[in-house]
Amino acid sequence: SLLFSTYYAETRNVLLIVADDGGFEMGTYRNKIVQTPNLDALAKNSLIFNNAYTSVSSCSPSRAALLTGTPSHQNGMYGLHQGEHHFNSFDDMRSLPKILKDNQIKTGIIGKKHVGPGDVFPFDYSQTEENNSILQVGRNITHIKNLAREFLSNVTQPFFLYVAFHDPHRCGHTNPEYGEFCQRFGNGEEDMGSIPDWSPIHYVPEQIELPYFMPDTMEARKDVAAQYITISRLDQGVGLLLQELKNAGHSNDTLVIYTSDNGIPFPNGRTNLYDSGIAEPMFISSPSHKERKGKVTYSLASLLDITPTVLDWFDINEGNSINNNLTGRSLLPLLIKEPQDRSKEIVFASHNLHEVTMYYPMRAARTQRYKLIHNINYNAPFPIDQDFFLSPTFQDLLNNTRTNQPTYWYKTLKKYYRRPEWELFDLKKDPEELNNVAGKESFKEIYEDLKGRLHEWQKVTKDPWLCAPHAVYEDKGDYKNEPQCLSLDI
Amino acid sequence: SLLFSTYYAETRNVLLIVADDGGFEMGTYRNKIVQTPNLDALAKNSLIFNNAYTSVSSCSPSRAALLTGTPSHQNGMYGLHQGEHHFNSFDDMRSLPKILKDNQIKTGIIGKKHVGPGDVFPFDYSQTEENNSILQVGRNITHIKNLAREFLSNVTQPFFLYVAFHDPHRCGHTNPEYGEFCQRFGNGEEDMGSIPDWSPIHYVPEQIELPYFMPDTMEARKDVAAQYITISRLDQGVGLLLQELKNAGHSNDTLVIYTSDNGIPFPNGRTNLYDSGIAEPMFISSPSHKERKGKVTYSLASLLDITPTVLDWFDINEGNSINNNLTGRSLLPLLIKEPQDRSKEIVFASHNLHEVTMYYPMRAARTQRYKLIHNINYNAPFPIDQDFFLSPTFQDLLNNTRTNQPTYWYKTLKKYYRRPEWELFDLKKDPEELNNVAGKESFKEIYEDLKGRLHEWQKVTKDPWLCAPHAVYEDKGDYKNEPQCLSLDI
Ligand SMILES: [Ca+2]
Ligand SMILES: [Ca+2]
Ligand SMILES: [Mg+2]
Ligand SMILES: [Mg+2]
Repeated sequence: SLLFSTYYAETRNVLLIVADDGGFEMGTYRNKIVQTPNLDALAKNSLIFNNAYTSVSSCSPSRAALLTGTPSHQNGMYGLHQGEHHFNSFDDMRSLPKILKDNQIKTGIIGKKHVGPGDVFPFDYSQTEENNSILQVGRNITHIKNLAREFLSNVTQPFFLYVAFHDPHRCGHTNPEYGEFCQRFGNGEEDMGSIPDWSPIHYVPEQIELPYFMPDTMEARKDVAAQYITISRLDQGVGLLLQELKNAGHSNDTLVIYTSDNGIPFPNGRTNLYDSGIAEPMFISSPSHKERKGKVTYSLASLLDITPTVLDWFDINEGNSINNNLTGRSLLPLLIKEPQDRSKEIVFASHNLHEVTMYYPMRAARTQRYKLIHNINYNAPFPIDQDFFLSPTFQDLLNNTRTNQPTYWYKTLKKYYRRPEWELFDLKKDPEELNNVAGKESFKEIYEDLKGRLHEWQKVTKDPWLCAPHAVYEDKGDYKNEPQCLSLDI
Repeated sequence: SLLFSTYYAETRNVLLIVADDGGFEMGTYRNKIVQTPNLDALAKNSLIFNNAYTSVSSCSPSRAALLTGTPSHQNGMYGLHQGEHHFNSFDDMRSLPKILKDNQIKTGIIGKKHVGPGDVFPFDYSQTEENNSILQVGRNITHIKNLAREFLSNVTQPFFLYVAFHDPHRCGHTNPEYGEFCQRFGNGEEDMGSIPDWSPIHYVPEQIELPYFMPDTMEARKDVAAQYITISRLDQGVGLLLQELKNAGHSNDTLVIYTSDNGIPFPNGRTNLYDSGIAEPMFISSPSHKERKGKVTYSLASLLDITPTVLDWFDINEGNSINNNLTGRSLLPLLIKEPQDRSKEIVFASHNLHEVTMYYPMRAARTQRYKLIHNINYNAPFPIDQDFFLSPTFQDLLNNTRTNQPTYWYKTLKKYYRRPEWELFDLKKDPEELNNVAGKESFKEIYEDLKGRLHEWQKVTKDPWLCAPHAVYEDKGDYKNEPQCLSLDI
């Protein structure tokens, strides 16, 4: 956008850092226990987002959304990419790496890719689980540092480097030998290997600050303590990356974005559209925008905004062909000043599956004050994934529920499994989303308004679930010019 | 198999003819109204299957199963391939065209492909919806004849020609201008174009013989009458193909198989695992097997048997690498004699989605006498697809139900929408599958036996839904050597 072009240095690059299932475990977001000096230093040099949300709380769908600027239902990545889940973005998606490549910007990815097909995400430099051990490219920060160095030392043109850490993802499901969060991987103990650049920081379970949506049990505290150890690896990895950027002489011409793909792998977190599942850490550090460094924005941001932001930064505007398909917006204007009126802001979310067996499409609209969720397969119980199921926190919750013991949780598993079709929350009065006011007469106007705006967004983003579950979407033949939802009710 | 090798001519070819949503509308299967001289003539020269079943009553999944010998959940084609549905077989599937290609057999496809990815189904000669109008390659029988001629006149080695008619698929949903079943396409009337080789046969709605699972209304009769017109196109198309085969000198060295991909697009048909959805016409005509021409076999056959049958015909046995993955069997032995004991026979079915919004995984086991169905998303109503929804038969049924009029149907729409998790039918006493005996004490042994055999088949075929919906399937990490279903119940 020409409006901001005077701010830019001549060369412009992007370093996008994404945590895997990472949340607000850092000083920046007022966690007083976990130590994250590197993330905090980056945040101090950034605009800090207090209201950033992923559009889908599931790894592959979120990354496809991040890299295309389109929600899950629009880009075709309806669930996880790997193995039997086997989801892929549509072949004709114009992804960020594709657009950037076409604009002579060198693209690189280090770490967890988890999207496909290959043709849609053509990174020039690629060190991912597709050609490496995911533990090495995603958690071995010394290796990640060296790969970043390799990329940076060979780049002679503007670049986009996407570093996708695998920390602090769970590990108990696939690699229990390294601990619940792979917190022992590379810690120098016997059989654990060694990551030279990592100094693990350990925590006392009793001192953990649990977020409101966690059961307060010793099992959960130990689980979080394990997660915190891997946060130290992530944090030090971010420090190494920024040092490499500096060493390569790119501190002053590179936009650095830090965020995470989805909610933390705890109850009410990942795979949910409650705030505990979709709220993400995010900060953006721009060498060309000094106005708000270390400040906080309360403007609503979505991970769908990342693609428009990066395109804006590179001043790429392929006519209407891309932007017409994007419902996000560039976040760069926020780096200059906070909007005067945030009351009309809205972000949307769209979840379909996670594992292929976990069909639970949800749509959500969130304003500063309200959240509306549409649970499309509300007749069925909310599905639980393989990874989360085995977690000590969930196992403990399940066992306590089964044996009628106290769970020390803020809701019941029964309520968690069984959800009504529509949920409306007044987030100002009920930030924990415990009191569904969807059926209340006094909220009727708000309910109808959000429902209408959600439906409109679904239309614009060509949502195949537009009419689900009570009607069939007809958009071909006689209905080509005027698509309709035709009721199934009897 | 060496057992039968003395029967074979030196050159061996296969012509596989598949109808799209075709059923038993032909004289061969005792329909006294519809006229199908060409299909009947082929049947007279074939072994006629009275108990052939598709493993999934949905187009792309069925074709992927047909061409790989594996069920939907094993090959990854969980639903429709085209557009937003966007399902694909796994990249590492060894499909029939791939195996045949590797064995120097020339492969061709004419008509509806509806499977992917391209690399998994590499036909040497390909005239499909991917490079043509589907109406031209799937319904214009003169064009199909010419394409078959082109293929046959250029082939100098053993061949496998797969002709996938688009008839008698519905058409009202996408091309209503040609009528509900595209019965006017190419009939020579104004704007309809002309198919020189087709002489349309028309039927009087009052005289139609409706199958038991159809509502007996004038709307349904008109709908079937329209379908019958396209049956005349399909039938004459089959006649043209066989004439081309003869003209090319391949009548005496070519195995001809006729079948259909899934149930007819009427209530209880397509997308269902009731017999009305999965029973398929099938006959196999072999120039090397004269024993049972025009005879009927009552042996249970599955469309999963097609791949093993074709491999057997070509005497291809890639060690255990292919056959270990296949649960079907060659049907060639049936061409010689009927098995003495059919009581142990069993076929399986596996449906997951159809359109991407229609998640309704079902598994079924069928013996000569019993059928067990597991409705995995039984909490939700049975989904209705866009094409079927708009059909006059369904619209009529829906309207009559809503207005409390008689539906003239053998079940209620309410019962059709809402299904129990388990359905067990005694097909001998209850061929219409109306009386679910799954909970009955007197059927307990049968129920448990079929459940066990179904579960075993799901295991062998690596079913991701093995533990759904009440448990999570754990097969990695600690569970790698001993996968388990871990309960979600509280
Ligand atoms: Ca993730
Ligand atoms: Ca079909
Ligand atoms: Mg996982
Ligand atoms: Mg269709």
